[in-house]
Amino acid sequence: MYSAETSPPEVHMSVASLLSIHGDRLNHNLNTLAEIGKLAKGGVRRISFSQEDQLARQLVKNWMEEAGMTTCVDTAGNLIGRYKGKRNLPALATGSHIDSVPSAGRYDGTLGVLAGIEVVRALKYNQIVLDHPVEVIVFTDEESSMIGGKAIAGTLNPDPEYYRRKDGMSIQECLQRVGGNWDAIDTSRRSREDMAAFVELHVEQGGVLESQQAEIGVVQGIVSMNRYNLTVTGSPNHAGTTPMDMRQDALVAASQIVLTVNQFANHLADGIVATVGALNVWPNATNIVPGRVELTLDIRDLSTQNVMALVERLKSQIEAIAQQNQTLIEMEPALNAMPTLSSPNIMKAIAQVSNQLNLRYVELPSRAGHDAQEVGRVTDMGMIFVPSRGGISHSEDEYTPPEQCTQGADVLLNTLIQLDTEYS
Amino acid sequence: MYSAETSPPEVHMSVASLLSIHGDRLNHNLNTLAEIGKLAKGGVRRISFSQEDQLARQLVKNWMEEAGMTTCVDTAGNLIGRYKGKRNLPALATGSHIDSVPSAGRYDGTLGVLAGIEVVRALKYNQIVLDHPVEVIVFTDEESSMIGGKAIAGTLNPDPEYYRRKDGMSIQECLQRVGGNWDAIDTSRRSREDMAAFVELHVEQGGVLESQQAEIGVVQGIVSMNRYNLTVTGSPNHAGTTPMDMRQDALVAASQIVLTVNQFANHLADGIVATVGALNVWPNATNIVPGRVELTLDIRDLSTQNVMALVERLKSQIEAIAQQNQTLIEMEPALNAMPTLSSPNIMKAIAQVSNQLNLRYVELPSRAGHDAQEVGRVTDMGMIFVPSRGGISHSEDEYTPPEQCTQGADVLLNTLIQLDTEYS
Repeated sequence: MYSAETSPPEVHMSVASLLSIHGDRLNHNLNTLAEIGKLAKGGVRRISFSQEDQLARQLVKNWMEEAGMTTCVDTAGNLIGRYKGKRNLPALATGSHIDSVPSAGRYDGTLGVLAGIEVVRALKYNQIVLDHPVEVIVFTDEESSMIGGKAIAGTLNPDPEYYRRKDGMSIQECLQRVGGNWDAIDTSRRSREDMAAFVELHVEQGGVLESQQAEIGVVQGIVSMNRYNLTVTGSPNHAGTTPMDMRQDALVAASQIVLTVNQFANHLADGIVATVGALNVWPNATNIVPGRVELTLDIRDLSTQNVMALVERLKSQIEAIAQQNQTLIEMEPALNAMPTLSSPNIMKAIAQVSNQLNLRYVELPSRAGHDAQEVGRVTDMGMIFVPSRGGISHSEDEYTPPEQCTQGADVLLNTLIQLDTEYS
Repeated sequence: MYSAETSPPEVHMSVASLLSIHGDRLNHNLNTLAEIGKLAKGGVRRISFSQEDQLARQLVKNWMEEAGMTTCVDTAGNLIGRYKGKRNLPALATGSHIDSVPSAGRYDGTLGVLAGIEVVRALKYNQIVLDHPVEVIVFTDEESSMIGGKAIAGTLNPDPEYYRRKDGMSIQECLQRVGGNWDAIDTSRRSREDMAAFVELHVEQGGVLESQQAEIGVVQGIVSMNRYNLTVTGSPNHAGTTPMDMRQDALVAASQIVLTVNQFANHLADGIVATVGALNVWPNATNIVPGRVELTLDIRDLSTQNVMALVERLKSQIEAIAQQNQTLIEMEPALNAMPTLSSPNIMKAIAQVSNQLNLRYVELPSRAGHDAQEVGRVTDMGMIFVPSRGGISHSEDEYTPPEQCTQGADVLLNTLIQLDTEYS
């Protein structure tokens, strides 16, 4: 059912004297993979470590082997296909993930993996062997723990309890299901010595390319993600009998925080984003002055300096808000993921290849997390984006036209070929 | 166990040549009644129509009869004790309720009922028969539907489904449990023809008397209660990939509403209170720009004009907030209970009696709802408040010292005696 035997006949077209991948097969395989965990509206649900994830891994492994790669699974469960190089050099790697959020489209992650396989097929079809080995990596659990990428980067939390899933399943059992082994997970660590560079193709999951009518995004880096949990403690009182000037209204203070965050992000630095996404009120009753509010703050930017400036300004503002409303405001860091900047030489290669293919490109930061943000901590990293229609992702409505998927894979192929020379 | 046989011996003390009630017995009976539905910390749980409510009604009925009253239950389940008058005049009525919120103190409602019984005992002990009959009313379900007061006022919703309880029990079954009858509930309606005036003694449930070191509150009226449900609809987008200027953040708009309401209530009119007590965010996730927020607005004041002024200013501000955040804001009325003003002659009588008893009084509005707000729609109404320690009510921590309970009952007794002359 999921065999590549049913794929269209092999036809390669050459654009501007560069190599190109087999676009029809790429798009056919995107649809074939989307049959696993298919949802009613055409999207997919392929949660990591689920039966669907395991089935999809098996299919992708078969495709890798058909494309001429040897495959192995590291202790973090990462599925790695390897196409031999002429020389004993560190690999040029690509790839992404095939797990999904609960209600996903068919492009997020999957495009990068299947394009990687098509890159190898194109090399093989054209009887090209690069100096470097080429690796295509399917990373484990990108949508939740990012444990695959973190194991490669050596950025794991050593406590396995940190990775226990909401349904109670331990990370040991999760990894066993996909051929990994928590007890030896350190052996999955990679370095520049065995991976010269990593280039990931992904759908944008935002609306910048579409709004600028660009076909290719040259990613400048993956923004930092800084999260804080805030708690405002006031006093829950009767909404009728408590005069306005005797209130300690936690929601009034929380609302001032929401607006302060929004205002700072709008004016502090170009491109920074800051969001209060979750907010819960206690006791949350019509006739009781709110006594406690918990809210989350999420800040992202390529510049750590900008993020810290926003946090500092917010902290000093929070003191004033607490005092004004006679409330106690606590702000606890919950996540501090540093930005990962793209390597300039890879950005340049992607831009050059895009030009040669007559594809309009723009440079932009990635404001969503990707496997490349972890891998980029130990070796050179670059990312290629293709447009998402309406900027929509993590939704069954996610869509990238077939020709744009093909364009992205063509840029990936020729970028790797160019890097093969640069890194020799 | 709950018999009046165990109450202290009959001793009346006269203050400033006025009559006084039997304070020890009043406070003893408050404690006796608090045994029914007693909670661990000393408060009570006596939900309307529950077994505890029924037991408490039986005990109060016995006490009424021991005090020399005939008793009956009207079709709304109101328990009415009647002490005959000299002449065939409309009644002078008092009373309150004995049902409670799930975790209550022992004074809210109960004080007004038991003080009413002590008033009749004091009249009888002193061999006084007023020109008017005196009624002591235990109103049905004050803490939730206020169906007892509303039936007397003729302000019921005719649809019985409106009164179905959260646990699924119909109002028909509820009323049957306490001797009422929904099908004939219209017969419970009263008017000035059979009730000349209604005076309710209640604990303040707020901190005004305590902060002003007053023993008695002369209630100016019961504030209107106006409730609205607001819905802000924006667009739920990725908190990383959606630039600040492309957001339709429902929580930013909602926060502006919270602060606008708070600011208006603080500055528009003295004494008005306005509260956003409940606020819920969708999808309420750290990494998603809020797409929808629902919030409640509760406004209370004695002046309908002030309330409408606040609503109008808010409505015009809401348009600007909606436009600025590219959101849709809907505001639906959920409750519009008109204020009930006290009768000036009853306020005057309460103030005079307080003076004669050397009790310091202040005039204040009631910002909580009471049975008197319904009865006051069909006849003259007045209310007497005694202090609540720390302004606390609807809590096991609710407390009013015994001497202040007695002071309130003494004011009630002598006010009714004074009104007996005025209304003849």
